[in-house]
Amino acid sequence: MSPVTNGRVLFNAIPEDYPVPGTTTVYDTSETIDLENVPLNGGILIKVLILSVDPYMRGRLRAAEIESYLPAFPLGKPLVGGGIGVVLRSEAAGVEAGAHVRGLLAHQEYVIAPNLVALNLEIIERDPKLHWSVYIGAAGMPGETAFMGWREHSDAKKGEVAYISTGAGPVGSMVIQIAKQDGLKVIASAGSDEKVKFMKEIGADVAFNYKTTDVREVLAKEGPLDIFWDNVGGDQLDAAMEFAAKNARIIECGQISGYNNGPQPMKNPGLIFAKCLHLHGFLVAYLRPKHAAAFRAEFVPRLVSGEFKFTEDVTKGLEKVGDVILAVQKGTNTGKAVVVVAEE
Amino acid sequence: MSPVTNGRVLFNAIPEDYPVPGTTTVYDTSETIDLENVPLNGGILIKVLILSVDPYMRGRLRAAEIESYLPAFPLGKPLVGGGIGVVLRSEAAGVEAGAHVRGLLAHQEYVIAPNLVALNLEIIERDPKLHWSVYIGAAGMPGETAFMGWREHSDAKKGEVAYISTGAGPVGSMVIQIAKQDGLKVIASAGSDEKVKFMKEIGADVAFNYKTTDVREVLAKEGPLDIFWDNVGGDQLDAAMEFAAKNARIIECGQISGYNNGPQPMKNPGLIFAKCLHLHGFLVAYLRPKHAAAFRAEFVPRLVSGEFKFTEDVTKGLEKVGDVILAVQKGTNTGKAVVVVAEE
Repeated sequence: MSPVTNGRVLFNAIPEDYPVPGTTTVYDTSETIDLENVPLNGGILIKVLILSVDPYMRGRLRAAEIESYLPAFPLGKPLVGGGIGVVLRSEAAGVEAGAHVRGLLAHQEYVIAPNLVALNLEIIERDPKLHWSVYIGAAGMPGETAFMGWREHSDAKKGEVAYISTGAGPVGSMVIQIAKQDGLKVIASAGSDEKVKFMKEIGADVAFNYKTTDVREVLAKEGPLDIFWDNVGGDQLDAAMEFAAKNARIIECGQISGYNNGPQPMKNPGLIFAKCLHLHGFLVAYLRPKHAAAFRAEFVPRLVSGEFKFTEDVTKGLEKVGDVILAVQKGTNTGKAVVVVAEE
Repeated sequence: MSPVTNGRVLFNAIPEDYPVPGTTTVYDTSETIDLENVPLNGGILIKVLILSVDPYMRGRLRAAEIESYLPAFPLGKPLVGGGIGVVLRSEAAGVEAGAHVRGLLAHQEYVIAPNLVALNLEIIERDPKLHWSVYIGAAGMPGETAFMGWREHSDAKKGEVAYISTGAGPVGSMVIQIAKQDGLKVIASAGSDEKVKFMKEIGADVAFNYKTTDVREVLAKEGPLDIFWDNVGGDQLDAAMEFAAKNARIIECGQISGYNNGPQPMKNPGLIFAKCLHLHGFLVAYLRPKHAAAFRAEFVPRLVSGEFKFTEDVTKGLEKVGDVILAVQKGTNTGKAVVVVAEE
């Protein structure tokens, strides 16, 4: 077989605010790969099937000299993100052709991994009732984020009141359902009426469109809050703190309001001591060792059975990654954003 | 005996920024009291001996309609604060003349309490080695604040690095000594060279004057921080977050930077999730039930033995309360601010 194109999504320019498809990232077809003969040097040749596009990726589209919890994407190189691929060839012990792997994959059609560990890859199998895409969504990192963050930090008690921002997103929608299972009253917000409808369907007691309804009006009526799950920061966080109960827990999962326009300040941090608030930041990677077994045993089966609902926003074609990244930052996607790179 | 003057410190006008002695508060001598004949109606007549002036009191010098964790002082009425008095007469069961009581006392020379509970009063005895003033300082609320807040929220481990702002104050100086006892490296700051000297004497490994030394330079060299004990907020909190280690604990005891100039924002709350920070606000009143016994058994004996050092800034005369309130807000006092109202 002759070499084939190995399409790639490259980090091309540091965005000033929102990432611009075709400028911030470009789709490149200049490379080819000989799938049968490319030397693996003991490694694994992977055909990328599906990639996850997540809010946190915006943080990696930055200048290399700015420090953060994940390194910046190098300019001129492919993006990297959660994904699933199928092994085409392998020289690595214990990895057979045909196996599926999940982990951090470059945004390109074919990837050569020196071994599983180097790319945080694991061999996975799927339940026949769930598509592979679910394993980078509700049964993958976003689902883990919701389950593990809640279990570690919520200290949830039956009858308490929780408020969840981005309640229609892949993390927030899972938090809603977990909180309901724990017996809480759940308030949730999102940015469209369609999303509000979905949040009600999955059990939110109070759901509202933050673009058309004043968050403070809702929280004044439905609060005070014992738990706030924050994916937004900025004014949502300020409002939640204003209507927090004494000893409320604020789970800091992310602050998308600050990803594209610079950090959004917290207006009145004095409320932290005045209300005895507890703010917990977390990154899911550090919670996996403690909670992975419970996630598999208690959470994934509820996805398989259909008890927990999820939505996906599927885009076909690696060349669309830039558009999907922007949609996720703007919140115009509906459901977990995944890009299908190839069918098996 | 004929009636005597019952001097009082009244809340006279809501301050715009720093409280102004003689305007914000006024000393009033218009009332008299007949100590022998005033009806007690089953209550207790107390001669106020010593009053505590603390940073948090600024928060009560506000308009009544603004909500906070403690009610505003009513305009035209005496201030109220921690204090110690001696019982002159009592009609309450179990309270004898000559007993000493500690609790929330009005800022006046003589107080009639309907009972102990109404004013959160308790009968106390003192160790002969400690003056009464210590029981509203290191052996009182500020000491409890340090001991209980640290024990509840620090999760301190030997060898970790702690930074303590207002390290020469009645709370911060106790935190320094507790942290050293727990085997931590302690960085501490205060606003004068005299205070820096004191912080070194009580064990701080690194002590600096934040008015003449850049906090970020110190933390860059001596950090990263595992624990930040915050009495200041504002730029000190921002700096501590910048130099916090992953999983650092930030203990929010107070934010004096916001008491007189309005709330000081937290510049980059996104660091909370990026660094997996844990911020714990607390009010000592809620920690007493859990930690009071340990405070008496483990902390107070170290004051008696002299192992833990403390300083006091003693002012004589109830009419000076307004000046002392201002000094505490400006940080010009050196040591725990107490006002001696009367000798026994």
